[in-house]
Amino acid sequence: MNAIPTLDDIQEAVKRISVAANYTPILTSKLIDEFCGCKIFFKCENFQKVGAFKFRGAYNTIASLSNEDLQKGVVTHSSGNHAAALTLAAKLNKTTAYIVMPRTAPEIKKRAVQSYGAKITFCEPTPKSREETAQKIIDETGAYLVHPFNNYSIITGQATAAYELINDSDKLDYILTPVGGGGLLSGTSLSTNYLSPHTKVIGCEPDGADDAFRSLRDGIIYPSENPKTICDGLLTSLGEITFKIISKYVDEIITVDDEKIIEAMRLVWERMKIIIEPSSAVPLAVVMNNKSKFENKSVGIILTGGNVDLNKLPF
Amino acid sequence: MNAIPTLDDIQEAVKRISVAANYTPILTSKLIDEFCGCKIFFKCENFQKVGAFKFRGAYNTIASLSNEDLQKGVVTHSSGNHAAALTLAAKLNKTTAYIVMPRTAPEIKKRAVQSYGAKITFCEPTPKSREETAQKIIDETGAYLVHPFNNYSIITGQATAAYELINDSDKLDYILTPVGGGGLLSGTSLSTNYLSPHTKVIGCEPDGADDAFRSLRDGIIYPSENPKTICDGLLTSLGEITFKIISKYVDEIITVDDEKIIEAMRLVWERMKIIIEPSSAVPLAVVMNNKSKFENKSVGIILTGGNVDLNKLPF
Repeated sequence: MNAIPTLDDIQEAVKRISVAANYTPILTSKLIDEFCGCKIFFKCENFQKVGAFKFRGAYNTIASLSNEDLQKGVVTHSSGNHAAALTLAAKLNKTTAYIVMPRTAPEIKKRAVQSYGAKITFCEPTPKSREETAQKIIDETGAYLVHPFNNYSIITGQATAAYELINDSDKLDYILTPVGGGGLLSGTSLSTNYLSPHTKVIGCEPDGADDAFRSLRDGIIYPSENPKTICDGLLTSLGEITFKIISKYVDEIITVDDEKIIEAMRLVWERMKIIIEPSSAVPLAVVMNNKSKFENKSVGIILTGGNVDLNKLPF
Repeated sequence: MNAIPTLDDIQEAVKRISVAANYTPILTSKLIDEFCGCKIFFKCENFQKVGAFKFRGAYNTIASLSNEDLQKGVVTHSSGNHAAALTLAAKLNKTTAYIVMPRTAPEIKKRAVQSYGAKITFCEPTPKSREETAQKIIDETGAYLVHPFNNYSIITGQATAAYELINDSDKLDYILTPVGGGGLLSGTSLSTNYLSPHTKVIGCEPDGADDAFRSLRDGIIYPSENPKTICDGLLTSLGEITFKIISKYVDEIITVDDEKIIEAMRLVWERMKIIIEPSSAVPLAVVMNNKSKFENKSVGIILTGGNVDLNKLPF
């Protein structure tokens, strides 16, 4: 698909992924509500397959491919949740996932992707080396490139999380998601626009990787240069497609510092007894940092994932 | 109440606690099932109020007291989940909780109980000092003593967890719980006896605190002397009441070492993305250590709590 996803597209994706994805629960915490002064509905994508929302987009994309494409395989350059998601989605659709990873990626991420059965090719830790290595694989195999976010089919898949959240909640005043490359935020803004147009959508970003905030403010895509944040899932720049959608459908981007993000992460671990990764904690940190804005409001937050290295916790 | 709880008693407790306790979910994990070779249903009491099943018994007990008793308050000597549970249950029933705690208790536990509004009295870290201090409070206030497990009303409350688990599951071949003082195991064995008498009930205990295993084997209550285990919730001996019920209704006690318990705890954190405390991981460790016994069986496990100090993780 090559156009902004329609409501029909999103509804088809909901059906398509339903055979493989988890229908994740929405959790609430009276204690966190009291602390924040608002009512928060947490959509728990940390309980999604491979521990992250990324499975939605990856499965939607691969399950939409032709048999011809499926025979050739899929390829991506990513070391994170998208790589694991694409690999599992490929396995379930009986095709091969070729994953290009910087040789410097953490061992735990290499092992995770390997455990799902990917064919990994290591490259130098530069954008140029990644793209060249991916291109080489495409030239050799004819594999289909699945960009982690700058892809309409991926965005349609990610849109299903907010689709479920909105359908399962009473009227929400706000929906907050983190923003890295913008795939989830794009999909969320579309589902919200179609299903609950009065709900405001806010992208949440670490201070140390505020390229999306600046891009939206100035109307041009700034590359994410030397991002400094604990949120390893939010280091990338927006793509042309996600920038276009976010510019039109997202109300605001709000940034917050890592200290607050770690505080929010710990609050969720201690009070809700669930494991979320730092990137997932950014929206709650934004609420905690802007209490008057959200006072007495009904707030949906997508907890994006739960993949953390237990040997390297920030607390 | 002063007799072994009947099915009617347990059903009344289910109603009584329903206004305050969380109806906790049952979670499954395809990955853990594949790893263990059986089908496991995890009853998630880590999501219970105060983060532990103990709230069931505490609330059931306090909500059964007369108005006269409620005016005087309740007292217990405990530094763990029972203290927090009793304090919250007291608050919800508008009575006072007097908690006797050894002055050596970890700061995090002192703060937890304080945050729920208890009146704490510190004592020396000996059974004698604890009991004397509690007795002094009773003499002064007339407060009602709520023993953490050797109490029929507490046992009836703890029985509601297995009651829900059995009602919400297909037929279970086994139900496993940890055993410390034996309140949960007693309640579980009674609910199982009434609702699903063909299901076998197994108590799970750390090697380093195997007093219940030895007590059941030899038919006498051994005190828990110098227990050495990471499972801080399982350090106590059985009481006369729990020993009597467990002797009659529990099929077996199985022990397992701390290394396996930590492995099981980590598996739950990493694969299920939920936080459980070491004591909660003992039943899964028993399954992992006895795979052939549980092969292809349907196994219910009560995850008893999620209260851990994130600054002192065993991994």
